[in-house]
Amino acid sequence: MDATEDELVAAIARVLSGAGPDVRTSIGDDAAVVQPGVGDLVLAADALIESVHFDRAISSARQIGYRAVVVNVSDIAAMAASPRFALVSLGLAGDVDASWVMQLFGGMREAADEYALSIVGGDLSRAAEVVISITVTGEVTPGGAVLRSGARPGDRLVVTGSLGAAAGGLVLARARGAGRYARSAWAGPLEEALERPTARVGEGRMLARSGATAMMDTSDGLAMDLPRLCAASHVGAELELARVPVAEALIDGADELGVDPLQLALGGGDDYELIAAMPPAAVDDAALELRRAFGVSLAPIGRIIDGMDIVAVAADGSSAPLARGGWDHFRA
Amino acid sequence: MDATEDELVAAIARVLSGAGPDVRTSIGDDAAVVQPGVGDLVLAADALIESVHFDRAISSARQIGYRAVVVNVSDIAAMAASPRFALVSLGLAGDVDASWVMQLFGGMREAADEYALSIVGGDLSRAAEVVISITVTGEVTPGGAVLRSGARPGDRLVVTGSLGAAAGGLVLARARGAGRYARSAWAGPLEEALERPTARVGEGRMLARSGATAMMDTSDGLAMDLPRLCAASHVGAELELARVPVAEALIDGADELGVDPLQLALGGGDDYELIAAMPPAAVDDAALELRRAFGVSLAPIGRIIDGMDIVAVAADGSSAPLARGGWDHFRA
Repeated sequence: MDATEDELVAAIARVLSGAGPDVRTSIGDDAAVVQPGVGDLVLAADALIESVHFDRAISSARQIGYRAVVVNVSDIAAMAASPRFALVSLGLAGDVDASWVMQLFGGMREAADEYALSIVGGDLSRAAEVVISITVTGEVTPGGAVLRSGARPGDRLVVTGSLGAAAGGLVLARARGAGRYARSAWAGPLEEALERPTARVGEGRMLARSGATAMMDTSDGLAMDLPRLCAASHVGAELELARVPVAEALIDGADELGVDPLQLALGGGDDYELIAAMPPAAVDDAALELRRAFGVSLAPIGRIIDGMDIVAVAADGSSAPLARGGWDHFRA
Repeated sequence: MDATEDELVAAIARVLSGAGPDVRTSIGDDAAVVQPGVGDLVLAADALIESVHFDRAISSARQIGYRAVVVNVSDIAAMAASPRFALVSLGLAGDVDASWVMQLFGGMREAADEYALSIVGGDLSRAAEVVISITVTGEVTPGGAVLRSGARPGDRLVVTGSLGAAAGGLVLARARGAGRYARSAWAGPLEEALERPTARVGEGRMLARSGATAMMDTSDGLAMDLPRLCAASHVGAELELARVPVAEALIDGADELGVDPLQLALGGGDDYELIAAMPPAAVDDAALELRRAFGVSLAPIGRIIDGMDIVAVAADGSSAPLARGGWDHFRA
């Protein structure tokens, strides 16, 4: 590191300056002091770790910083809450210089501005690899958070947007790292999905107002996350494979990439779409409102059933237990 | 890792069960939902990183977990706030097993119980080394936080408890690792200071009520932290070296350990005492109350002066600029 800790903190404070009126004291004290909202306080923490979640040879510091904030905001969105404040705890490998750190915070600042979030503190340390641990606080009307545990048999299962593009982007980035692939029309959207994900903050709040009984984000892939929602709700689910909204760019590039698009849509992580359960009567209106307000689709992909089975139903009506092909942080 | 992520999360949730009535939803959802207090919200994050802050060969998982919580609570204490909720973001090296993780959370739980703190969430990931990133939220009466920036020329400088024992404990632990030293009377207190630090929560609130104008904890050592407090307040300070409260066990063991106790008291980290500035007239009462309520001493160690100099005054009245011998996370 080509700066002392205090020099780096001062430089970061400059990049992040301009915190809102709710912030009494920010970076540079033992802790930040902010005014809480009137609703419930929502707290989420998510770390991006170099050997697991990103590659400095593939992604720029700015992209990594942007993504690190968005994945945390997505956890707040999944509760139907609004993001408010963030803390960043950073472990820096010895070969990282101050300019890389400033770019990282530049990307974080960009995402924070986009989601009306103030980065108010954190800490810095050396580490064997780069570790970016972020905590985001959010606010939601008292009792208004949508948990994973409220799904009831008979509910429809819905998902926002489309799935698999980020996983396709990762396959593409790795193949490019190995020297394969020229630029194709489908490549841009896959790269963007991986490097600049979107957190569904407004969509989450709207799904809550539409009557969502349970909700979570798809950060680890539908095949891993749907069973988690079902386990929390003590229910099962039928997933209609033909209705899973596979990202178009992934379908376009699948042959060249040598991947099965449905498998990536089910098993790939990093999509940050929302899956929710809601009464069947609420789905059409919710889809219309989501389309109108955000230009985002809402796909009905199955239903909640009694019991504990998670069943994948194929287009021909045959069914089988859903393979848990998603992202496990230890087994992957 | 000998467990899946979901199995580990379930086991951790059992260790941490029993969250208070303010917790609407805890571990196992995308985020935690809690009821905020009526005061200002205080937010602090601090990471313990294996290659920098602890050694699994020296400290048990339980000790590491306990300490990881206390160092965060200390940041809340330094604002004169009370700890409320914590999130734990954990990166786990490949050779860590589930039982080590359970012991780690056992130690965290113990510290959390001691400081009336609820651990309500976090995340897990693989990592190249063990990384424990904790965020603690606290509560303080609106506008009641004591910042680093309020010290005024003429204020007395005070410090709670004594300094240097944790740094002495680290020297001892390393020497023991090299096969030296049998058990001595002074060894126990040094080990305890390193492995079971105390966060001065009640003391911080009492110093605020006594009129502290600026406050921080001594986590990086007085010689590093005092200049930070002065810089934030745009003031200088005179530090009377003869009044620095060096830990007794460190004085007793200094010869055998081959260290200069005053140098460790000034430059060693991990003490988690509070340094504060306050009007001279307030010091005696504050010291009496601290002694009465907590059995903790309060030493006047100098005064705040105009300008930017941090001056060390020796017993013979000679003075020199204070050497910044504390703990820099990058230069150390």
